[in-house]
Amino acid sequence: MEKTLQVEGMTCNHCKSAVTNALKELDGVKEVTVNLEKGEASVVYEEGTVNESDMKNAVEDQGYDVK
Amino acid sequence: MEKTLQVEGMTCNHCKSAVTNALKELDGVKEVTVNLEKGEASVVYEEGTVNESDMKNAVEDQGYDVK
Repeated sequence: MEKTLQVEGMTCNHCKSAVTNALKELDGVKEVTVNLEKGEASVVYEEGTVNESDMKNAVEDQGYDVK
Repeated sequence: MEKTLQVEGMTCNHCKSAVTNALKELDGVKEVTVNLEKGEASVVYEEGTVNESDMKNAVEDQGYDVK
C-alpha cells in the first residue's frame, strides 16, 4: 500500500529528515519519500500493521501539520 | 567579547539548533544565542582562542551563508 500525506511547515532538509525518520520508525513502514517543495510525504507500508492515523501522529509529533 | 553574525538561510528550529551547536563546539565560545526571525547568531567568546573567521566557517559548514 502507498499513501501520500500533505505535510505543512517543512522548510529545509532538517525538516525533511525529521519527517522521514519519524515515519520510518513506525512498524510496518517500508519506504518514505519526502518532497519538500510539494510538502508531501509518500509512505509505502504494510496494511494492517500501521495506518494513516499512526503516520499522521508521527509527523505531528515532529511539529508539522498534516492536512 | 561578543560578536553578532548575520546568517542567511535559517528557516526553522532545526536550523537554529544546527547553527547553535556548531558554534558552541568551537573552543573559546562561551554562549550562543540565535534569533531565527532576524537571521542573527550572537556569540560570546574568549578573544585569542577563537575568531570571527572560525565562527563563519563553522556556520557555513552547516550549509548557511554568513554575510
